[in-house]
Amino acid sequence: MQARSWTPDPASALPLHRQISNYYMDKIRSGAWPPGMRLAPQRELCRQLGVNRSTVVTALGELSALGLIEGRRGGGTRVVDLRAAADGSVSYGDRTAASGSRADASGDRAVSTGDGTGMLPVQSAGSWNSYVEEGVHYPNLPTVQDINRLEYEQGLIRLGTGEPSPGLLPGEAMTRVLAELSRQTLPPLSYEEPLGSPGLRRAVSGELAKNGIQADPDSILITSGALQGLQLIAVGLLPRGSTILLEKPSYLYSIHAFQSAGVKFSGLPMDEHGLLTDRLAREACRTKAAMLYSIPSFHNPTGILMDAQRRQELMDVTGGLGLPILEDGAYQELWLDTPPPPPLKALDRDGRVLHLGTLSKSASPGLRIGWIVGPEPVVRRLADIKMQTDYGASSLSQLAAARWLEGGYHEEHLQRLRARLRQRRDAALALLQHHFAGLAAWNVPAGGFYIWLSLDKPVPLRTLFRAAHKAGLLLNTGDLYDRGDSRHLRLSYVYASTTELEHGLPLLAGLIRKLRQPGS
Amino acid sequence: MQARSWTPDPASALPLHRQISNYYMDKIRSGAWPPGMRLAPQRELCRQLGVNRSTVVTALGELSALGLIEGRRGGGTRVVDLRAAADGSVSYGDRTAASGSRADASGDRAVSTGDGTGMLPVQSAGSWNSYVEEGVHYPNLPTVQDINRLEYEQGLIRLGTGEPSPGLLPGEAMTRVLAELSRQTLPPLSYEEPLGSPGLRRAVSGELAKNGIQADPDSILITSGALQGLQLIAVGLLPRGSTILLEKPSYLYSIHAFQSAGVKFSGLPMDEHGLLTDRLAREACRTKAAMLYSIPSFHNPTGILMDAQRRQELMDVTGGLGLPILEDGAYQELWLDTPPPPPLKALDRDGRVLHLGTLSKSASPGLRIGWIVGPEPVVRRLADIKMQTDYGASSLSQLAAARWLEGGYHEEHLQRLRARLRQRRDAALALLQHHFAGLAAWNVPAGGFYIWLSLDKPVPLRTLFRAAHKAGLLLNTGDLYDRGDSRHLRLSYVYASTTELEHGLPLLAGLIRKLRQPGS
Repeated sequence: MQARSWTPDPASALPLHRQISNYYMDKIRSGAWPPGMRLAPQRELCRQLGVNRSTVVTALGELSALGLIEGRRGGGTRVVDLRAAADGSVSYGDRTAASGSRADASGDRAVSTGDGTGMLPVQSAGSWNSYVEEGVHYPNLPTVQDINRLEYEQGLIRLGTGEPSPGLLPGEAMTRVLAELSRQTLPPLSYEEPLGSPGLRRAVSGELAKNGIQADPDSILITSGALQGLQLIAVGLLPRGSTILLEKPSYLYSIHAFQSAGVKFSGLPMDEHGLLTDRLAREACRTKAAMLYSIPSFHNPTGILMDAQRRQELMDVTGGLGLPILEDGAYQELWLDTPPPPPLKALDRDGRVLHLGTLSKSASPGLRIGWIVGPEPVVRRLADIKMQTDYGASSLSQLAAARWLEGGYHEEHLQRLRARLRQRRDAALALLQHHFAGLAAWNVPAGGFYIWLSLDKPVPLRTLFRAAHKAGLLLNTGDLYDRGDSRHLRLSYVYASTTELEHGLPLLAGLIRKLRQPGS
Repeated sequence: MQARSWTPDPASALPLHRQISNYYMDKIRSGAWPPGMRLAPQRELCRQLGVNRSTVVTALGELSALGLIEGRRGGGTRVVDLRAAADGSVSYGDRTAASGSRADASGDRAVSTGDGTGMLPVQSAGSWNSYVEEGVHYPNLPTVQDINRLEYEQGLIRLGTGEPSPGLLPGEAMTRVLAELSRQTLPPLSYEEPLGSPGLRRAVSGELAKNGIQADPDSILITSGALQGLQLIAVGLLPRGSTILLEKPSYLYSIHAFQSAGVKFSGLPMDEHGLLTDRLAREACRTKAAMLYSIPSFHNPTGILMDAQRRQELMDVTGGLGLPILEDGAYQELWLDTPPPPPLKALDRDGRVLHLGTLSKSASPGLRIGWIVGPEPVVRRLADIKMQTDYGASSLSQLAAARWLEGGYHEEHLQRLRARLRQRRDAALALLQHHFAGLAAWNVPAGGFYIWLSLDKPVPLRTLFRAAHKAGLLLNTGDLYDRGDSRHLRLSYVYASTTELEHGLPLLAGLIRKLRQPGS
């Protein structure tokens, strides 16, 4: 399914170029393409529309003759601002000039509004330009925007996607859940309580107990995925300018939840047993850290499992500092060989740990069900913000999730999923051995989704990303998880099939070889 | 369903006070009640637990003897910080003192963390105190927090609730939708596209066309209710310090989406035909306004319907200014007598209007499905933030909503709902005539949910709110929608039944009479 799908109809009596100019005219006259919006370059339009260059040129010529678009030297082709052209009045597009540009509007806030078509120079709205660029919330990193868009492009092999392929998700079991629900008296159509539906919170409480976490339903807030949990904590508990410590690299570097709330990061190194605690106390004091974020089980992106001893050390050191911990338990259930040590929350004696969980990595990303476990005053504060943000998670999703957990579907699904992920992991490792020996090193993940590929020499990662896209591969490069990185890739064995890996990994190895030896 | 429901079991062999002290001990030892958290006053604990004062005193005495709680002069009873008591080290609760308090931590940012029990002095977490108070996002207004909590209290008559009662929601029809879905091949369990599922966007596009809005699916972003749409626009399009114009009073004053993003409000007056446009141009220039927010159809809270002429005037005046409009169309379908004039978006020729819609007011608040319609570059920017916020709306809700719209269920439901709301409105108006003549004036709403009651004399609204709660009534007072207001109430005929209104409205009239004539 592609987001942008209109193409002219070759069977129509109307010539292709006229179909195109009519379609564009509608877009412009309706305001969907506002004044000043830049059209994609002609070669890109050809690709989008599936027509040759002369057809595009004719269509644009018609629009230009109607005064709807105009070419500007160096500025591409833009939608004409008819009103401004008519009376010369100040347009709302000039707001920035009038009110002064925001200090941080440049630099790492580069905005890519995306054109739904690829990585070519993006369209930008003229009149809405300053609006699109000036909101408080940061845009996604350009690479992340590309990935979010390209994931809906057909035929790409997704080598780093952190989401189980549709075939690994329990479609049939969920159909049984829906059938069960449709036989119940009536589905809940009203708003749920601020903390989430009592039924789902009871079910989550039961799941947590299996991992050694004692949390009653009053300590649990249902969120729209663990990502929303991070967002709520970012805006709900931390003042601007505060610092959180975290593993480096980390998933947290790839999203902007905390940065958009004015929170700074201070990364700490890991070894194969997890976050190194020796520099933690010093760094916490130096930065007056407000919190430590950690993914102890099957870390994203490195796949590292923090062992039991390191977990206890971490609790001891942070306990001495009185430093709260945000534990991301997204991958905890997804062990492949043996269950991981108990989560940090299970070791927490003084309510110092907030624990995040989710169904997105195991049962269904689409359900958008996650949870935050923590002291009651904290989850109530976060629930209050959630009520202001979206008035709670979908009642239908909450109902299905509660049934999913309580009906035993989840446990059954996890067992099958682990067996299948084990096979996929082993196949991926065998392929790496075959194609990447001498080119990179990697870990053997005991759970989760990821293999962290460490290249033996640096490679320009953005260039690699583009070259891979041309070759039909979608990559999650290391710079998403550590801005300065130039020698890692996050590989995943949960989205691409083994057949796709067999095709994609040798291709990737070839591209890497080329980029480390330019000119050869 | 109450969020806080534990009470001791009178049938147990264990004495009530021991059950209570055991339960509290678990809460404290697990950290769910963190060090420094204040317990509710004894009379409130009696009410919560359904026991008499001596039982509570005995239970607290046991906990105190164990060193788990302590009474502080003027500070109530608090959970002891065992660690601090033991080694005197600086607790993370002291962070504020160390790093300096935030400038705006006081004043109108007063935090009520809520104790899940009523409106008495709230508990606050000791060690987490500064965290709970210092997040970027504002807490809800204390009255809104009370309302959000009290809506789950049994037996209260909700006179102002902006949500259809469960009996008005289409439970049976939604059950048929679920049954249909469970017979489909497989439910969508993966993430949806950034803009939302293509199927639902096509269905919404079809609905919009019925109201004269031509918007193809690329111009539509699916949100978790219209509230999330406001949130995304607040953080996505407006820099800190910008101003939006809006009707005063307005629903927007009752939430903190824009204020938390540093956006200021400038309220404009209305008459019975809607927003007055004569001061609009001057105010827009004076404040360098970035946007105008309006609810033209069945305004919340006043119920006013902007007529066609005023709509055109509004479009003309803002067009001359180049001022973008955010049109909230939440109540548009809910006309009772005749359909309203076309929405502002239908009059928009240059992509200047963002239009919000939702299923929450008609079909199901719990589904959490709304949409934003606007120029493509704008909805793409907002979609990018939505991906960072919660990774999209529930795929299950989106699937059900698409089927709901396309299967004709929605249209059928609306027709029935309108007939029932008409009856309820007329009954409410008759009751007002009977009980409020000479005490207040009110509008006759032609649609939507609300009657705006204008008291002939000012009344202390917070006092009225508390007195009403004691009498079993939950109110939406006018100060929620205009901070300076002291003579309005938002009444709703969609939650309380006519029988409840027959009981509640005379009670309310009595309370108002008392408060305007103190001492009588």
